Amino acid sequence: MRLKELREQVCEANLELDRRKIVVHTWGNVSGIDREQGVIVIKPSGVSYDKLTPDKMVIVGLNGQVVEGDLNPSTDTKTHLVLYRAFANIGGVTHTHSAHAVAWAQARREIPCFGTTHADYCNGPVPLTEPLSPDEVTRDYEAETGEAIVRRIGKGNPLATPMVLVAGHGPFTWGKTAADSVLNAVFLEEIARIATATITIAPHAGPVEDYVLNYHYQRKHGPGAWYGQKK
Amino acid sequence: MRLKELREQVCEANLELDRRKIVVHTWGNVSGIDREQGVIVIKPSGVSYDKLTPDKMVIVGLNGQVVEGDLNPSTDTKTHLVLYRAFANIGGVTHTHSAHAVAWAQARREIPCFGTTHADYCNGPVPLTEPLSPDEVTRDYEAETGEAIVRRIGKGNPLATPMVLVAGHGPFTWGKTAADSVLNAVFLEEIARIATATITIAPHAGPVEDYVLNYHYQRKHGPGAWYGQKK
Amino acid sequence: MRLKELREQVCEANLELDRRKIVVHTWGNVSGIDREQGVIVIKPSGVSYDKLTPDKMVIVGLNGQVVEGDLNPSTDTKTHLVLYRAFANIGGVTHTHSAHAVAWAQARREIPCFGTTHADYCNGPVPLTEPLSPDEVTRDYEAETGEAIVRRIGKGNPLATPMVLVAGHGPFTWGKTAADSVLNAVFLEEIARIATATITIAPHAGPVEDYVLNYHYQRKHGPGAWYGQKK
Amino acid sequence: MRLKELREQVCEANLELDRRKIVVHTWGNVSGIDREQGVIVIKPSGVSYDKLTPDKMVIVGLNGQVVEGDLNPSTDTKTHLVLYRAFANIGGVTHTHSAHAVAWAQARREIPCFGTTHADYCNGPVPLTEPLSPDEVTRDYEAETGEAIVRRIGKGNPLATPMVLVAGHGPFTWGKTAADSVLNAVFLEEIARIATATITIAPHAGPVEDYVLNYHYQRKHGPGAWYGQKK
Repeated sequence: MRLKELREQVCEANLELDRRKIVVHTWGNVSGIDREQGVIVIKPSGVSYDKLTPDKMVIVGLNGQVVEGDLNPSTDTKTHLVLYRAFANIGGVTHTHSAHAVAWAQARREIPCFGTTHADYCNGPVPLTEPLSPDEVTRDYEAETGEAIVRRIGKGNPLATPMVLVAGHGPFTWGKTAADSVLNAVFLEEIARIATATITIAPHAGPVEDYVLNYHYQRKHGPGAWYGQKK
Repeated sequence: MRLKELREQVCEANLELDRRKIVVHTWGNVSGIDREQGVIVIKPSGVSYDKLTPDKMVIVGLNGQVVEGDLNPSTDTKTHLVLYRAFANIGGVTHTHSAHAVAWAQARREIPCFGTTHADYCNGPVPLTEPLSPDEVTRDYEAETGEAIVRRIGKGNPLATPMVLVAGHGPFTWGKTAADSVLNAVFLEEIARIATATITIAPHAGPVEDYVLNYHYQRKHGPGAWYGQKK
Repeated sequence: MRLKELREQVCEANLELDRRKIVVHTWGNVSGIDREQGVIVIKPSGVSYDKLTPDKMVIVGLNGQVVEGDLNPSTDTKTHLVLYRAFANIGGVTHTHSAHAVAWAQARREIPCFGTTHADYCNGPVPLTEPLSPDEVTRDYEAETGEAIVRRIGKGNPLATPMVLVAGHGPFTWGKTAADSVLNAVFLEEIARIATATITIAPHAGPVEDYVLNYHYQRKHGPGAWYGQKK
Repeated sequence: MRLKELREQVCEANLELDRRKIVVHTWGNVSGIDREQGVIVIKPSGVSYDKLTPDKMVIVGLNGQVVEGDLNPSTDTKTHLVLYRAFANIGGVTHTHSAHAVAWAQARREIPCFGTTHADYCNGPVPLTEPLSPDEVTRDYEAETGEAIVRRIGKGNPLATPMVLVAGHGPFTWGKTAADSVLNAVFLEEIARIATATITIAPHAGPVEDYVLNYHYQRKHGPGAWYGQKK
């Protein structure tokens, strides 16, 4: 894939954040990776969505240096880079401050898998990172945020749990492409919103039965998945 | 009614889900039945609403085989079929993951009939199914979901309670036509949303008086109903 | 004012309900009165807002007979008529099932005057009617609903408390004109929505100080009101 | 800056309130100051947003007299003036009745700094004023509201805490320009909305760690801030 195409995809994915109404102002950023060329394409910092065009996207090397672009990349760029280095099968990363996902992150609670809506996209609770220590914040806050995510997600397949809540901060999501990572951000916000209502109705609600969770997750994502159309 | 017309009605009913904003992404499906020909028309699986056209609808026989159509039907097709076989007077079925209806289903609580807004459309609480057993999930999850709904609704008139919550999953609604089943999905979501607020304000709120419930239900649906215009 | 003009105003006021997004489907109705001619103009029953035109409005005499119009008037017509007969200085009445106002009505709680947003439009709590008895429901439900409202509002100036919650049902509002009664329905829904959030944050929140309530109410509605522009 | 330009900026800032959907009806007002000429430009009282044009803005001297304009200025004008006199480095002030900010003001609770979304814009909790006394309300309610804000914000840099909740009333925000004060009103409403959800999920949620708060605040607003683009 040429970088021109990736610029367009990442720009479009950032605009989709705004169209799906999960960002206020400039509170979100999406990136995509070209693993062959060893670069990511990411939103410039603090630029509003109505002014985003593909040529304003910033190209950054995996070690963090800007390769191409006149604008500063997102301040969260280092977090994105840590995720790309640790999760070899992901192609896109999204960060937002969508309201209910942030609320669970601020409440410092994992989102239990209360039902099939959740199980369709995330194979278990939406995990929560450990808080950063003062040292980690001082040393390299954005990179350490990525490391905390990687520690929490662990060694399994990151696409089985394509979403996380950073304690006291908010959600990061990922996917095979930049567009998929945005969809996962949309799904996480809806899952979180429904979860907030669930515990309002039943403060001690428990998770859905394991065998239902597994069935739903496999129906969409397992080796013999039959949801959707043949690709 | 020719199948062409039913295709159009069912396509339109699926699009209405999106326009009424009770679905996110592809999280909902509507079907309609032609009882003379013994077939249902249903949304294809995983196709987004902006790409739906009448010719993409899938025609499925009552025993589950695809009669016409290049795309896979909704993964929930077997649930729809069980409902059509059990409820002889319904013409349409809708399934969504609308937020507040899902929240009550996840909280595993029936929605009490808190007031006349609810009584206008559902003659008593919105019922909740029993959870499926591991055996039922393994054997035939989607069909067993339908059977659990049929057991819960019972032998009475299904149009008097045209909505149900599947425990840990979400709502199914039905009606005389595909369009009516969508309206019932819209009403259920609004009833559920208001019920969430009601118990936020008064955690021990009780149901509306039986004689008010009955009066409102009969005003719209009884033999001498006088709501609306003569048809 | 000629009836043609009142038809247009009442039609427009009904459409405003929909534009302000405080109604779902056909769940609301507005009327206006011509006291000289002794008739009200009201929405036809069960007609959706996208099909409303001034000529479809129904003209009803103060004793309840239809004077002009091919369609059935709103089933709530008798409630409107009771209010017009009891409250000599009102010119319009609105009934909705807006979510948060209904939630408080279902929770059977008055809305305390928690702050100035409320005090700007309603001089004290939003009152709640007593429930109807079985006899009242059987005898003449819609008229008795009006009587319960009139008993609750009492002998004072109804424009100082232009809104009420009917227990287990929902809100009625009124004003000098049909358009004003719709604005009061919009304000009540917003007041109720903010009140729901208020008790979520502080379950035992108390009302605003009386002297602030009075100041705000007088600033907008008192004899020397200085809010807005000279008329 | 000529007054014509300031009229346009303030008019545009008022319209932005409506476009961002943080006001209902006429429930909000924005002003801007020209410190050289010693005047502010402010929204006229009770005029709806769809009728606002730059020439309808009212110009008011710092002592409160109308300098130019046929319409009455906002009834909250005196509050704005007190803020401009006390906070020498602000250029715009916004007042709204946005739902969640009002709910916290009515609940009489400061909004704890639950996370980084909040820390990005406000260096600590969103403060709450002391209630006014009966004397203060009688003497000069709008000016005393401003004085209560000034007492609460104190002698520090008002731009580090560009938002306040007036107890029982609602939010005031400020910024370097009228447009910035509107953005702060948008941010406050979103911060308040997320905070309401946070305490729904975890009633005893605590604030974010101080060292994270400081890091985030400095990243956007400190002397070496690196968020956004070089100006």
